Amino acid sequence: MEFRSEDIDDLARGAALLGTGGGGDPYIGSLILKQAMADGRSVKIIDADELDDDALVVPLASVGAPTVAIEKLPNGNEGDLSLRRLETVLGRKAAAVMPAEIGGFNSLAPLVVAARLGLPVVNADGMGRAFPQLPMVTFHVFGLSVCPATIANEHGEVMVIETDDNQRAERIVRSLVTAMGGFVAMALYPMTGAQVKRVAVHDTLALAIGAGRTIREAREAHRDPFESLLAYLGATEYYKHAKVIFDGKIVDLIRETKGGFAIGRAVIDGIGDHGGRMEVIFQNENLIARLDGKTMAIVPDLVCLLDRETAEPITTEGLKYGQRLKVLISSVPPIMRCPEALAVFGPRAFGFDEDFVPVEDIQ
Amino acid sequence: MEFRSEDIDDLARGAALLGTGGGGDPYIGSLILKQAMADGRSVKIIDADELDDDALVVPLASVGAPTVAIEKLPNGNEGDLSLRRLETVLGRKAAAVMPAEIGGFNSLAPLVVAARLGLPVVNADGMGRAFPQLPMVTFHVFGLSVCPATIANEHGEVMVIETDDNQRAERIVRSLVTAMGGFVAMALYPMTGAQVKRVAVHDTLALAIGAGRTIREAREAHRDPFESLLAYLGATEYYKHAKVIFDGKIVDLIRETKGGFAIGRAVIDGIGDHGGRMEVIFQNENLIARLDGKTMAIVPDLVCLLDRETAEPITTEGLKYGQRLKVLISSVPPIMRCPEALAVFGPRAFGFDEDFVPVEDIQ
Repeated sequence: MEFRSEDIDDLARGAALLGTGGGGDPYIGSLILKQAMADGRSVKIIDADELDDDALVVPLASVGAPTVAIEKLPNGNEGDLSLRRLETVLGRKAAAVMPAEIGGFNSLAPLVVAARLGLPVVNADGMGRAFPQLPMVTFHVFGLSVCPATIANEHGEVMVIETDDNQRAERIVRSLVTAMGGFVAMALYPMTGAQVKRVAVHDTLALAIGAGRTIREAREAHRDPFESLLAYLGATEYYKHAKVIFDGKIVDLIRETKGGFAIGRAVIDGIGDHGGRMEVIFQNENLIARLDGKTMAIVPDLVCLLDRETAEPITTEGLKYGQRLKVLISSVPPIMRCPEALAVFGPRAFGFDEDFVPVEDIQ
Repeated sequence: MEFRSEDIDDLARGAALLGTGGGGDPYIGSLILKQAMADGRSVKIIDADELDDDALVVPLASVGAPTVAIEKLPNGNEGDLSLRRLETVLGRKAAAVMPAEIGGFNSLAPLVVAARLGLPVVNADGMGRAFPQLPMVTFHVFGLSVCPATIANEHGEVMVIETDDNQRAERIVRSLVTAMGGFVAMALYPMTGAQVKRVAVHDTLALAIGAGRTIREAREAHRDPFESLLAYLGATEYYKHAKVIFDGKIVDLIRETKGGFAIGRAVIDGIGDHGGRMEVIFQNENLIARLDGKTMAIVPDLVCLLDRETAEPITTEGLKYGQRLKVLISSVPPIMRCPEALAVFGPRAFGFDEDFVPVEDIQ
């Protein structure tokens, strides 16, 4: 499928939704992508089954605290630099790039590189959402190595990372991110086309574009964007259990940038029919929604915060005291809920003392 | 000159002296070097003028807190790994290696690599002593770049660092060192033979061996090792203003491992003729010696702590409460005292609010 500049805002919106607050600010990403596509060029989005089995595919991501990224802007060529340096390490050229995660800036960044370098983007990622740590992707769950990986920042500084241990790669990269300015571009988990087919979460880029487009079209037609969005998600295989569970106003917000993450929680008091108090805890991404202390949705399922009028997704760094919003929860791709996956990014991986229960099974 | 395994202890001792407490534990280094030379092989030490002008010379160093290195031993091939990876980045083979600094482990580590890989070692370094930060070498003072540089640890993990800014390289490497285990091998400041001739401090490896040998031979002949050592140093161009200024006992010792450094101070009360109280402040290396508050020697001049009976140099991590020692101070190579050099590693670079005064000018 051809991705055109008029699709950028839809992707940014849909990616912010599925990113559950994380993945970096989509507005900045969309400006950079608009600039990269300003001369009318389009980006080719291909499905995994179009890849040769031995093609080199390089996932791309930004790493760092989104709260940093909105104050210190990328210059737009960090992604190229990280990819080109990784190609040098591997001694071969990438046939395609791929988002490592769907979420805000991180869905758009691979398209920036693709537009600038004329590469296709694979319609897939490593989670169908966003997560804060490098091993929290299906690529890791199914045995791939983060390394060799490269990091580049806006000063043109580049690091090559080589370790067999993905958890150690996370630790090393996290300490580097702070020293390199808090928000960097990364090329990681280089893999073959055959591996993409086996370990990636498929179709997620198209789903993000579709979700973003659905919200926009409902607004333009003066329909309820939530109704349209739930209808759209309900028709998908991955997000079919999406529902709005709360409507309220932020009455308390704690957010700090710590160890390279944006960590905190939002407390939301109900408006109208929705009484009670909702608490949402996040580490870059929203991790859990509790209504009066009872868990309503928990990682890896989605907890999305949306403007209660426009259904615009709100990122972690965009949360404000007094903001009125709706809380949408959703199922995720089945591959994300298997025991191997839950061991890596289920509730206990984030320090919650409870087991994963699918949103559709929670009363 | 041929360096043989019977020279190892002399080099370790002399390097610990000139390293003024830093550069890593020489005992561990000497064990690793003995193992690398166990089959009777020797290492060729060459002078800078024996190098082809376009030869690739790679300085090697360990980076981290010596207090970590004595608890978590290197496995002995970190240096090979860092050199070999840097050769890959540069696309050419090294003709020789060189110590980045003279000091404890760091004088021996390049010989380990040289013995294992059959390379010569250049009889020079970047300071004729030891210092705690990457830009604190003549290589930096005269405009060379730290990068491309590589880091390797005992797990076989490797990082490639590419930045134009040596101060930023220091910051990035320091944050990496902690994440990589606190003590790592580094290949840095790759340079040509012509650059070695221009920017290195020459003859320092031979001087370290000579100083170590002098102490040993005096002991074996039941002569006063201090008298012999001062005679030896006094005959050199670099260290000719060496003198013993204090004889005492450690009565207070504060030492902590912070930000990848061993930082602290030793307070020494005088014994016999030497009344008063001496304070020595260190950051991996000894930086300043004050007698009753008056500065007697300050960086880049040497402050060396030696066992008062045997003249064995005592490293920062070897300092102990109650230890009896003598304080030896010395001039350094003139290249280390030029204004450009003092701007990088003079007193103010270490936060001391005083100007450099050569030891020979202090009463």
